[in-house]
Amino acid sequence: MSFIVKGFDASAVAAGIKKSGAPDLALVASRVPCRAAAVFTRNLFPAAPVIFDRQLLAFNPDSIYAVLINAGCANACTGAEGTANARQSSEQASLHLGAHEHSVLVMSTGVIGVQLPMEKLLAAIPKVVETLTPEGWTAAANAILTTDTRPKLATRTVTLGDARGVITGIAKGAGMIHPNMATMLSVIATDAFITQPLLQQALAEANELSFNRISVDGDTSTNDTVIVLANALADNEEIVEASSADYIAFVAALTELCTELAQAVVRDGEGVTRFVTVHVRGAVSDAEAHQAANTVATSPLVKTACFGGDANWGRILAAVGRAGIQVEPERCDLFIDGGPDAATRRGELQLVAGGVPLPYSEMAATEIFAQPEIDVRVELALGEGAATVWTSDLSYEYVRINGDYRT
Amino acid sequence: MSFIVKGFDASAVAAGIKKSGAPDLALVASRVPCRAAAVFTRNLFPAAPVIFDRQLLAFNPDSIYAVLINAGCANACTGAEGTANARQSSEQASLHLGAHEHSVLVMSTGVIGVQLPMEKLLAAIPKVVETLTPEGWTAAANAILTTDTRPKLATRTVTLGDARGVITGIAKGAGMIHPNMATMLSVIATDAFITQPLLQQALAEANELSFNRISVDGDTSTNDTVIVLANALADNEEIVEASSADYIAFVAALTELCTELAQAVVRDGEGVTRFVTVHVRGAVSDAEAHQAANTVATSPLVKTACFGGDANWGRILAAVGRAGIQVEPERCDLFIDGGPDAATRRGELQLVAGGVPLPYSEMAATEIFAQPEIDVRVELALGEGAATVWTSDLSYEYVRINGDYRT
Repeated sequence: MSFIVKGFDASAVAAGIKKSGAPDLALVASRVPCRAAAVFTRNLFPAAPVIFDRQLLAFNPDSIYAVLINAGCANACTGAEGTANARQSSEQASLHLGAHEHSVLVMSTGVIGVQLPMEKLLAAIPKVVETLTPEGWTAAANAILTTDTRPKLATRTVTLGDARGVITGIAKGAGMIHPNMATMLSVIATDAFITQPLLQQALAEANELSFNRISVDGDTSTNDTVIVLANALADNEEIVEASSADYIAFVAALTELCTELAQAVVRDGEGVTRFVTVHVRGAVSDAEAHQAANTVATSPLVKTACFGGDANWGRILAAVGRAGIQVEPERCDLFIDGGPDAATRRGELQLVAGGVPLPYSEMAATEIFAQPEIDVRVELALGEGAATVWTSDLSYEYVRINGDYRT
Repeated sequence: MSFIVKGFDASAVAAGIKKSGAPDLALVASRVPCRAAAVFTRNLFPAAPVIFDRQLLAFNPDSIYAVLINAGCANACTGAEGTANARQSSEQASLHLGAHEHSVLVMSTGVIGVQLPMEKLLAAIPKVVETLTPEGWTAAANAILTTDTRPKLATRTVTLGDARGVITGIAKGAGMIHPNMATMLSVIATDAFITQPLLQQALAEANELSFNRISVDGDTSTNDTVIVLANALADNEEIVEASSADYIAFVAALTELCTELAQAVVRDGEGVTRFVTVHVRGAVSDAEAHQAANTVATSPLVKTACFGGDANWGRILAAVGRAGIQVEPERCDLFIDGGPDAATRRGELQLVAGGVPLPYSEMAATEIFAQPEIDVRVELALGEGAATVWTSDLSYEYVRINGDYRT
């Protein structure tokens, strides 16, 4: 599969930040300036690159050339020195790209509370610029991994009037060996021609239905960041209205891309043995449905039951019941199936009707919960609110990875 | 240790509800009518005994004789039949106690979605009444256990004017073999003479600082209930004012008792290898401090780090940062020590000052996190808000117990 986006290059080198010596510095760069948009962690201990990028984007969202990403050091809880290091990395990358000094966004993932090894990083920046190539996406996607086991890339095309736009993204997911913070990073490049405010709006909309709908362990990192760069080389007519067909098509493609990456992050989460989709429908609002689905998705009792292959519906209802949303137990129905992968579907099975268990076949329920992908659907029958969240089971391996000492 | 409370008896029998054949039906009864107060789960899928007790207490909080508790079946998600069974159990116990028909509260813990085996239960009620004895507390505390490994009892005396009151309580905690719901039940008996509204207020105050401050896995059960019965046989002057010295002494003793039971529940939680105390101070309010402490206490990354004996402070700050409270990272300090058990204290060690890590001794930090009891203290330096929460680590054994199939 080709991930090439017109005018974009990517690359990766080993800067010596990861102890393993594996590639750990990636660059995604455009040959022409981009409009940039981003969503960041809401954690109140944001890492230095998050602080720096927010400032840079507030100042200059219309002329960004690149995103520089290092793995092996999160540059979080590093105070003023950390922010200065983020700035210096950005400026050096700008310099070697031949761009103006406010043109490179930065991302970091890795150990917290340790300063970036600036000597190694600065020495590697010229190399990562030199090796830029339109085919560099897979190398970049590999370099940003930590405890992830496989690179995560996705691409979509979108028809924009007479033109054809491309959107390509890479992501890294849950898990970092040292110190095992679950950091989610994604860089997305597109050649679409779109105003910066609409690019930001499109990313916010797509993010809300994709990266904001996944949970491995409910722990939000200090570094979580999704950045999209748009370099306008697709030759489409500029997207200037949120009501336009082109905007709607762009958001749809971007949401699909983000959903594919987000699901890949969950599937490659620490110790994950099952991929679990939680649908909540019939809530009084989408927000309440999301809250209920999140509560089910982060419940250790639900997640260990999924690990054990046990269709333990009492835990699912109990999680809904403590989610802080409107619920009328006597209206609740609960259904399970394999899925979304068609190979894991076994036919929908209703376990609960009106808050009381049905005399369902325990064998059929067990067969569904033995699948590597499980769908759970709670129907509240109170309104039109609906939400879907993707999560994983909680396994021995999760405890092992995260209980291991940092060194 | 004597748990005897004037005028109270307790007992336990094997009704055949637990598959093991172990005692599974307990009774705590007063020879004279009691004022009763209770706090219940806020889960919106309350079990039948919760629904029944709420109704009974609304109707008759001033003349309760007993609490009947069965283990092995939660009588939850059992619809109208479940509520009728709870009522019938209560009425039969009243009948055999020779009391009026609205005098017995009920509690259940065990498998969800299954009706109470009423034939067995009704046959056992006369026996559990016949075996009542002032020394029956330990037997009762044993009968209500499920995956708990030891009985939980506590007692306190309190000076009320010229009189001496006694408060004794039993509790069961986290873990139920079938289907592994974490249900927390407690019955407390006192001979204090106190108005019913003040008894309820005292329980609410004590509960807020004890049972509401523990977390094993953040999952709130459908059955959680704490009931206190007060039979007024201590001969103290009736406590009628919340500002009186006697009320204050009573609340203090009740809070101590509830704290001892609550901590015992955590220490005996499923798969627990470490007991962790999380203090948050300097928040803008007690409520925000509680919210932050709870977020730290329920973070899978913090809990697995405690299991691994890893002083992984980045996860603690990251949990505070996503707790939804006011935080200024550059004001945050973080301290650790063993404790509260004096045998596990190693001297307080500061890891973070002003949001940035100190050059602390990793060996000293590791020695603290190797203790079976760990204290974590986060200082936010924003206000006077403070809260303490008790929790446990997250171990392989927790995953094993809760991943095991129900049958």
